[in-house]
Amino acid sequence: MGCPVLLFLLLAFLMPGVAIPVPPALRALSNLHLSTSFTSHPAAVGNYSIHYFEQKVDHFGFKIDKTFKQRYLLADQHWQKEGGSILFYTGNEGDIIWFCNNTGFMWDVAEELKAMLVFAEHRYYGKSLPFGASSFKDSRHLNFLTSEQALADFGELIKHLKRIIPGAENQPVIAVGGSYGGVLAAWFRMKYPHMVVGALAASAPIWQFEDIVPCGAFMEIVTTDFRKSGPNCSESIRSSWDAINRLARTGTGLDWLSEGLHLCTPLTNSQDVQRLKDWISETWVHLAMVDYPYESDFLQPLPAWPVKVVCQYLRNPHVSEKELLQNIFQALNVYHNYSGQARCLNMSEAATGSLGTQGWSYQTCTEMVMPFCTNGIDDMFEPHSWDLKEFSDDCFKQWGVKPRPSWITTMYGGKDISSHTNIIFSNGDLDPWSGGGVTKNITDTLVAITIPDGAHHLDLRASNAFDPTSLLLARSLEVKYMQQWIRDFYASLRNTR
Amino acid sequence: MGCPVLLFLLLAFLMPGVAIPVPPALRALSNLHLSTSFTSHPAAVGNYSIHYFEQKVDHFGFKIDKTFKQRYLLADQHWQKEGGSILFYTGNEGDIIWFCNNTGFMWDVAEELKAMLVFAEHRYYGKSLPFGASSFKDSRHLNFLTSEQALADFGELIKHLKRIIPGAENQPVIAVGGSYGGVLAAWFRMKYPHMVVGALAASAPIWQFEDIVPCGAFMEIVTTDFRKSGPNCSESIRSSWDAINRLARTGTGLDWLSEGLHLCTPLTNSQDVQRLKDWISETWVHLAMVDYPYESDFLQPLPAWPVKVVCQYLRNPHVSEKELLQNIFQALNVYHNYSGQARCLNMSEAATGSLGTQGWSYQTCTEMVMPFCTNGIDDMFEPHSWDLKEFSDDCFKQWGVKPRPSWITTMYGGKDISSHTNIIFSNGDLDPWSGGGVTKNITDTLVAITIPDGAHHLDLRASNAFDPTSLLLARSLEVKYMQQWIRDFYASLRNTR
Repeated sequence: MGCPVLLFLLLAFLMPGVAIPVPPALRALSNLHLSTSFTSHPAAVGNYSIHYFEQKVDHFGFKIDKTFKQRYLLADQHWQKEGGSILFYTGNEGDIIWFCNNTGFMWDVAEELKAMLVFAEHRYYGKSLPFGASSFKDSRHLNFLTSEQALADFGELIKHLKRIIPGAENQPVIAVGGSYGGVLAAWFRMKYPHMVVGALAASAPIWQFEDIVPCGAFMEIVTTDFRKSGPNCSESIRSSWDAINRLARTGTGLDWLSEGLHLCTPLTNSQDVQRLKDWISETWVHLAMVDYPYESDFLQPLPAWPVKVVCQYLRNPHVSEKELLQNIFQALNVYHNYSGQARCLNMSEAATGSLGTQGWSYQTCTEMVMPFCTNGIDDMFEPHSWDLKEFSDDCFKQWGVKPRPSWITTMYGGKDISSHTNIIFSNGDLDPWSGGGVTKNITDTLVAITIPDGAHHLDLRASNAFDPTSLLLARSLEVKYMQQWIRDFYASLRNTR
Repeated sequence: MGCPVLLFLLLAFLMPGVAIPVPPALRALSNLHLSTSFTSHPAAVGNYSIHYFEQKVDHFGFKIDKTFKQRYLLADQHWQKEGGSILFYTGNEGDIIWFCNNTGFMWDVAEELKAMLVFAEHRYYGKSLPFGASSFKDSRHLNFLTSEQALADFGELIKHLKRIIPGAENQPVIAVGGSYGGVLAAWFRMKYPHMVVGALAASAPIWQFEDIVPCGAFMEIVTTDFRKSGPNCSESIRSSWDAINRLARTGTGLDWLSEGLHLCTPLTNSQDVQRLKDWISETWVHLAMVDYPYESDFLQPLPAWPVKVVCQYLRNPHVSEKELLQNIFQALNVYHNYSGQARCLNMSEAATGSLGTQGWSYQTCTEMVMPFCTNGIDDMFEPHSWDLKEFSDDCFKQWGVKPRPSWITTMYGGKDISSHTNIIFSNGDLDPWSGGGVTKNITDTLVAITIPDGAHHLDLRASNAFDPTSLLLARSLEVKYMQQWIRDFYASLRNTR
């Protein structure tokens, strides 16, 4: 059976939507420093003002009349009251300022769309905590952390903005989001089409639920990225697990592994070895997600096309165990110590406050149940099946709640979404999350844009001199669709007057 | 100010969806015997089986894992696995068996559509009580009585049926409902278009919220019905209020009124007089709603075109006060004592158990806030303005909750529903509820069917020898649309195979 929980560690909605759906049992391991991996692109981001809007804690019940302050950001430098528009970022699982700083695309297109930019923080993240410091205390306080409540927040906020900002009332709103925020953008258009004329859902795995896509798709894409990035690269990684297992069984193996990897805390038992393998697997996943064509200024910076750089160390799977693992360690260093400044590597380094790992963990334990699995054949990982029972038990232990794995499909339609309109689903084909995304047109107005050689919502990042032509084309197509929605809105406004 | 709460007494979603949105202060008055006003049409209704499905009490939170048994009825005499369909009655505020017996239309079209009939009971009504006898105890127990929870019940039930009934999985489902149930049918198609290919929303006042339609529209339509049904009819009624008020101020006036009307309990004070006027107003409203072209076998039977019959007594508004009121009493007797069997008239006669007046009262005090008003000029009633503050205070006193009058618009879009598809909005132009309904086509697939001289969802009633041609045309058009949806469903099924 292996350790099915491993896989959850791997699955981070990364950049800007970093968050790790961690299984309760291994929660401590999830404290990776992903959330600071990406700094802002201040060149693209202009000034914004910070606001708060009073939201009902419970939109769907009347017993609890309590409210909380939802934070949102406004930028109107390029907004025009005549013929303008409103781009509404459907905040996901983290601090909204961090998302704002990392969604350069919205800033880049604001002038062309005469757009006001709104960034709405998701409840239970950043400063939008319904019960302040007690928000994550127990399942009673967490009870209002659902996608439905978040969408209702967005709806109420848009109504509020249209009421208080002169000129905003008769303007079209477009939802924009990436990763889980992209899922929310799509769902918002589906459930509140009266609020938004369309949605740009970047790298939104709306089908990563139940059995809509095969549970192995995600890790197969990671594997393909590595296979294509260098000869024998994925084979080397596939061989590495056995090498670790065999070495760990020898007397000096744990010491050798600890030293070779410069781990801050040496491995002492088989649980530590599992943690090491989880941590290595995560690294490969994250590398696939951020396999961008230019240097990213990580906290530890990454080179352009980091998977290619990694794969330079992994050309030969048929060397001795120790040699293979030395190569793996060098490859890991590309991600964890590219600057060469780290004195040792910390497998449980803390995440920054920008992301709400507690909130996201709860969400994956309730609605956002995403099955993942590996078989070691179609992918380069150790085999792990999807075990809902074990997952559910862990969730109950951790949060006192039981997941409802089929609820999202009931609520949002699963694959049967063809009656909706005006949603762009963009996916980079390097992005493991594209496996649960919409990558083919569903109708004329539910369109898929695939970005060859694109990683996790590359299109939402600020424009960069090294952006490949395919990305420029994708972005210009996205803008074209948005302009069409805006034109249609104003045309129908004229018709009804 | 008059008594704004009066108006709520008047507003019953009648036949089969009878229920009275009563203001807390005058709740005792609401116990009219409306719920038994209509007996079943057993000729049209065939055999059905009764089932229960385990539903989550709270679809939108995970703290409460409790379930309850939702009742539903199944009839499959005419169902065909090949090319068939499923008509799904979106139950409203009452006992589902009573609705089933009163929705002859579904039974009448079952064979033509090769349809299985499903009647789903609305939570908190009939036998579908989430907390059994404690369901209405307090706002904590009532917290899960919302349209959103009811729609989620429908969604889960349809998934369940498709899972357990061989042959149902790949069949199109059509939502059918009348009155509040019609509102639910429309909303269900809007929010869960993956569940139903279309909806027949009969007499569904989806716009009777906030300020979408004028608050006076409802009572103006009642007035128009009376004005058109006989010379001076509405004028007589308009004059009657002052006559009652003046008589009530005289020494013997209360006795005279009590005797003249054969009231079981004599009037003793000015509050009783207000109750009398409320009760009379209600009678006019109900008569307008059930102004059907044939005898209805009420508990107290009604003649065909009862408003015309009533108006025969109200031809002269310029008689003495007492004569005018004697005429009014005769008119009231048409509704309350057509059989001539009643020894006295009881203004607070108890409603039967078929309807959930408590549940509906709570719903109008939370989400389903429908503003009504009269001005005595455009309508034949005493002027009453809509006073949200007073309404809200009364609701808080009664249920411990505060209404959210704009929530329904946020959630369901108000007038901005043009992006949805495949909904038939049918309205009779005699029906006061048509004032809050969709009476013009919105798009090619959001269509309005108006039934001239039709009262409250006449089209859902069983076919009758006295059905006017306009009704037959309306029904055949409804069937045509439904057949089109079914064809489209099967065509798209073939395309995806």
